[in-house]
Amino acid sequence: MPGAFVGEGVTIEADVVLGPNAVVLGAGNGTAAWVQAGAQIGANATIHPGVTVGIRAQVAPGAVVTRSVPPLAIVEGNPARITGYVETSAGLGPLAGSGPSPSSRGVQATSVRGVTLHNFLKVPDLRGSLTVGEFEREIPFAPKRYFLVFDVPTAETRGEHAHIHCEQFLVAARGSVSVVADDGAAREEFLLDQPQLGLYLPPMTWGIQYRYSQDAVLLVFASDYYDSADYIRDYGDFLDMVRQQSIP
Amino acid sequence: MPGAFVGEGVTIEADVVLGPNAVVLGAGNGTAAWVQAGAQIGANATIHPGVTVGIRAQVAPGAVVTRSVPPLAIVEGNPARITGYVETSAGLGPLAGSGPSPSSRGVQATSVRGVTLHNFLKVPDLRGSLTVGEFEREIPFAPKRYFLVFDVPTAETRGEHAHIHCEQFLVAARGSVSVVADDGAAREEFLLDQPQLGLYLPPMTWGIQYRYSQDAVLLVFASDYYDSADYIRDYGDFLDMVRQQSIP
Amino acid sequence: MPGAFVGEGVTIEADVVLGPNAVVLGAGNGTAAWVQAGAQIGANATIHPGVTVGIRAQVAPGAVVTRSVPPLAIVEGNPARITGYVETSAGLGPLAGSGPSPSSRGVQATSVRGVTLHNFLKVPDLRGSLTVGEFEREIPFAPKRYFLVFDVPTAETRGEHAHIHCEQFLVAARGSVSVVADDGAAREEFLLDQPQLGLYLPPMTWGIQYRYSQDAVLLVFASDYYDSADYIRDYGDFLDMVRQQSIP
Amino acid sequence: MPGAFVGEGVTIEADVVLGPNAVVLGAGNGTAAWVQAGAQIGANATIHPGVTVGIRAQVAPGAVVTRSVPPLAIVEGNPARITGYVETSAGLGPLAGSGPSPSSRGVQATSVRGVTLHNFLKVPDLRGSLTVGEFEREIPFAPKRYFLVFDVPTAETRGEHAHIHCEQFLVAARGSVSVVADDGAAREEFLLDQPQLGLYLPPMTWGIQYRYSQDAVLLVFASDYYDSADYIRDYGDFLDMVRQQSIP
Amino acid sequence: MPGAFVGEGVTIEADVVLGPNAVVLGAGNGTAAWVQAGAQIGANATIHPGVTVGIRAQVAPGAVVTRSVPPLAIVEGNPARITGYVETSAGLGPLAGSGPSPSSRGVQATSVRGVTLHNFLKVPDLRGSLTVGEFEREIPFAPKRYFLVFDVPTAETRGEHAHIHCEQFLVAARGSVSVVADDGAAREEFLLDQPQLGLYLPPMTWGIQYRYSQDAVLLVFASDYYDSADYIRDYGDFLDMVRQQSIP
Amino acid sequence: MPGAFVGEGVTIEADVVLGPNAVVLGAGNGTAAWVQAGAQIGANATIHPGVTVGIRAQVAPGAVVTRSVPPLAIVEGNPARITGYVETSAGLGPLAGSGPSPSSRGVQATSVRGVTLHNFLKVPDLRGSLTVGEFEREIPFAPKRYFLVFDVPTAETRGEHAHIHCEQFLVAARGSVSVVADDGAAREEFLLDQPQLGLYLPPMTWGIQYRYSQDAVLLVFASDYYDSADYIRDYGDFLDMVRQQSIP
Repeated sequence: MPGAFVGEGVTIEADVVLGPNAVVLGAGNGTAAWVQAGAQIGANATIHPGVTVGIRAQVAPGAVVTRSVPPLAIVEGNPARITGYVETSAGLGPLAGSGPSPSSRGVQATSVRGVTLHNFLKVPDLRGSLTVGEFEREIPFAPKRYFLVFDVPTAETRGEHAHIHCEQFLVAARGSVSVVADDGAAREEFLLDQPQLGLYLPPMTWGIQYRYSQDAVLLVFASDYYDSADYIRDYGDFLDMVRQQSIP
Repeated sequence: MPGAFVGEGVTIEADVVLGPNAVVLGAGNGTAAWVQAGAQIGANATIHPGVTVGIRAQVAPGAVVTRSVPPLAIVEGNPARITGYVETSAGLGPLAGSGPSPSSRGVQATSVRGVTLHNFLKVPDLRGSLTVGEFEREIPFAPKRYFLVFDVPTAETRGEHAHIHCEQFLVAARGSVSVVADDGAAREEFLLDQPQLGLYLPPMTWGIQYRYSQDAVLLVFASDYYDSADYIRDYGDFLDMVRQQSIP
Repeated sequence: MPGAFVGEGVTIEADVVLGPNAVVLGAGNGTAAWVQAGAQIGANATIHPGVTVGIRAQVAPGAVVTRSVPPLAIVEGNPARITGYVETSAGLGPLAGSGPSPSSRGVQATSVRGVTLHNFLKVPDLRGSLTVGEFEREIPFAPKRYFLVFDVPTAETRGEHAHIHCEQFLVAARGSVSVVADDGAAREEFLLDQPQLGLYLPPMTWGIQYRYSQDAVLLVFASDYYDSADYIRDYGDFLDMVRQQSIP
Repeated sequence: MPGAFVGEGVTIEADVVLGPNAVVLGAGNGTAAWVQAGAQIGANATIHPGVTVGIRAQVAPGAVVTRSVPPLAIVEGNPARITGYVETSAGLGPLAGSGPSPSSRGVQATSVRGVTLHNFLKVPDLRGSLTVGEFEREIPFAPKRYFLVFDVPTAETRGEHAHIHCEQFLVAARGSVSVVADDGAAREEFLLDQPQLGLYLPPMTWGIQYRYSQDAVLLVFASDYYDSADYIRDYGDFLDMVRQQSIP
Repeated sequence: MPGAFVGEGVTIEADVVLGPNAVVLGAGNGTAAWVQAGAQIGANATIHPGVTVGIRAQVAPGAVVTRSVPPLAIVEGNPARITGYVETSAGLGPLAGSGPSPSSRGVQATSVRGVTLHNFLKVPDLRGSLTVGEFEREIPFAPKRYFLVFDVPTAETRGEHAHIHCEQFLVAARGSVSVVADDGAAREEFLLDQPQLGLYLPPMTWGIQYRYSQDAVLLVFASDYYDSADYIRDYGDFLDMVRQQSIP
Repeated sequence: MPGAFVGEGVTIEADVVLGPNAVVLGAGNGTAAWVQAGAQIGANATIHPGVTVGIRAQVAPGAVVTRSVPPLAIVEGNPARITGYVETSAGLGPLAGSGPSPSSRGVQATSVRGVTLHNFLKVPDLRGSLTVGEFEREIPFAPKRYFLVFDVPTAETRGEHAHIHCEQFLVAARGSVSVVADDGAAREEFLLDQPQLGLYLPPMTWGIQYRYSQDAVLLVFASDYYDSADYIRDYGDFLDMVRQQSIP
């Protein structure tokens, strides 16, 4: 586009769109930036040196990108922050107008293969509230591990990977967290903002957690002990594996 | 004592001590109060009608007791609030000067039979912190249930019972909670104030949770599904059962 | 009662009940206290010198009363605070379980003669919310005056009088205020805690406003300009006038 | 200017100034932007698709405009926010150094035709404060309606219209609001930040309310019942009507 | 008085007044309390064992005293807190209605021998504010030491002593602190609540600091290096020394 | 660079670097900007008219500079804020990993000529904390003046000058302040974030204070009374004087 500038040594992959007057800084200012396939860089946007803009990510017009942008993420502002993920539908949680009210109980399917949203019993009480989940009855597996994620800066994305075999179950024990679940074809975003809501992620689901509230504590149950070989950390690799699995 | 007043219909059990000018209100003001064995009522204290002061509880001088006082509890103020439990030692948690520092990891025995304090790995990170616990490896059982307790008013006691068969594991996912564990003979108080600390309570342990911070979320794992027959809710009954079990 | 003490010069009117060990301080400590007809002083309560305990007021057991207690008020704590009014029913506002939900619109009669509770249209909007009231259509008069009451300490009672001719209409423009309306026979308490709720008080209604939230702003419309001769400031006088009016 | 870019389908009206490297996005990115007469777009500024920049508005250099800009507004930042209005003098309220102190009482004329600033009596009291306004005596009309505006997000403008016949009177019952009054020739900005300050807007006055504080509650009295035909919502139409009225 | 109770081993010095039903606990409950000369114990008050009530202190009716009360202090509440000092006039600071406004500059004498209140120049500025004091010009000595007192719990009294030779100068660098200055004859209380206010205390002045706001930082300049022999820590000793000095 | 724009009348001194699409606004928009020697303007950055960018300052890519940038400062964002100073090492305070722990006491030299960091005794106490500094013993001079700086907006830099003869000693009495000390050759940044830390600045040290926390109170002792002739306010002049002094 007119006025766009791409610095020395910058890698621009296929199907990238650059808006007018956009600047992608190169080796002359440090390490060259890297813009991956299908990414869109808006007009007047500035990509700092050393930054990677992930597969199909979108940088808004005028945004100043100072840190790497994950695949599919939409970023805005100066400095740029993630404000959403492309082509992601709003989930069945409180985000969706037609979703279950907090007092209804049960399990609902979603648009993402195998992902289910669970609404547990909540028992309010003058002496405090209580919510309960039962393993193997309500939650489809017996946990080998739990972990707690906390003190996450609001602007951070924490989690961006898939598991080959491990199942996971997510609960926002306090505060709120947005979770994007992606099976390689469909993508849906869920707002976990009440302790009685849980989200089941089967194996081979790409999961992103972001928009942590200041006081958020995310409780995760995992069906297996930790195994680094079970993690898929690159979205391109994940897409390749999904395609191979679906070929008979 | 001089000036002490005990209302009509009040039950005063054995070994109760009443301070000077203490008032225990009786049937003339509603339902008569009940002061259980070994309780101590301080000088100038006022016990409202309908209130039960539990076994060996202590009401401080000047306190005005408007709600029932659990066994062993120490209450102070106007209105009276629980400030501790009698003959309870400070646990191995951060309450104890000689206890483990949060960065040391491992399991420690306590003065209460079978109760152990667990210090899990904590992984701090600029993108947020994470703590992990493994079932059957670090935690002595596989859970059938979890529950979350939250929105507990600071002044409330929540929990005051024992289980016949069920094992429990307690973690303060956020904020802080004080837990008193009691095997019928020894009593110890633990402050759970960091998400990487866990407390294991074996069957036949009387457990009290109190001093919830405003933002506290208590995460409890249970080794069995809910069974109301497994609960012992009266401390006298609990003491009887402990005595019977220890007689060969 | 045993141990009760009434100081020198104290006036105790008819039908007063004193609890055991209650103390009402007299001229020896300054100005003698004055306990009006039908008041009840609980066990171990302390009434400071110079204090008036109003008609049929109730001082809870253990309370320490340092300021005068209005007629009908119930006080508790140390120092004593107003916690309610005797024989007052909960109004039709959000206090009452069967009351209108905030989204329903309309006017409802109450148990107090001529007093009506109004629920106006509220228009929520992403750009802010708006509520509207129309004079002479929805509100039964055209205002000559408005006033705003604000910065009221939470523990204070502000308002305690009736008008001979003036009509009033009350709206909590922000925060919440409890209003007791009393026609000399029936008494009802209303919680104004949403800006679309309004309360109409006809002439010859004794009105009390208390439990102001920290941020409360009470908006009052009056049907007449200020006239000090229109105020009845003594509850005994008010009762007398009500009785005279109802005699044909 | 050098480097400026105007996208496909963008409407640029008369007397618009574009700074160097400014970008106005067009139909290729969604709906084309529209820049109205006399607007100024600063250097390096970015106007997102679908946005309208109103008559004589000013976009600061480097600003990223993601929402429409009202006539006369000055916007800055990323995303751009309104920081003022062009050619608007500071009013007689606390904004003006020489203005009345809050304790002085009275009515002051302003530079805008017919607009008056009113300072009512404020009665501070240990039991809370009170301010009073009298209709037809101090406020020039008898109200047919009141409305309350609240929960306005800080960054929002709420209000931007004129009335043909209706008079209005504005009071910030809590918090603060800035009001711009414009008679088509002169423009003045008033900070309503104390409950005893009121602003009278006669018919044919273009009024803008913005810079709502987080807790702001704006109380508005109107001389007529609601009539949608009385509203002028387009600033260009307003200017035309003012010109017609002033021609004898 | 009727119903008053004085425990075993309690020391009651001359001129003590006990109200009706007051309780002073003795050796039977631990260490006996000690009520010093001229103290007044109000009706229904409770003095815990081990507590000393200082010379001429006043315990309000209904108070429950759990910690020792300094000489001259007035205590109220449950638990009892210091609310003032007997026979202390309000100082020339903002406490006094007729005092200097913060913008006037200069030095003012007080009712306490040699104590002066200083109002320094304050320079407000959009970039922050600044206040300046000059030693030997405005402050009557050159400092050998400064100290900062901070993180003082609101309810605490910090400071209660006199110096034989050392001069002091006190500034509340942030927040507010109340200072009582006492020359053995006159006593005056000053509220230091703005950083440009300073209080000079000459040798042989009994000084008390209390009512620290939560964020208070008290800055003290001293004319001498630390010398423990220069401190008078007992008010009785201080009174004796003042009397000896004033006898020629 | 391609697409860069420099307005009419703008002064660009030697060794300035302009990134692609950067804009420096000139007389056409008000007063022309001035970019001093060695400054760097990043890609897509916008320099508003009337702004001075100081010696060797760095403007990040995409930054929008609306106020003047001091010498050596690094600015980022829209509007641009100071985030650091070029070639400045982290000081010996808590900023440096190997620095003294708050409990160790003493004086440490720094990389800047004559500047020393002092760690005073801190006496924590249940009744509040206290820290003490002694003049001529621990602090190398007797003060003629103190001043307090407070209410500084967080984004502001306050201080940016050197003294010819006057010595200074800085303490953050509350909150935290970052201080850059510069002898013309070396530059080091110190975080004063505890009241027991002090920083000594000898004559001919360029000092900058910034990153004031919201509650910061900076206490400064000066060895001389105020003398405007002792101030060096221009960094270029300071560098010239340092060079002249170091020539024998």
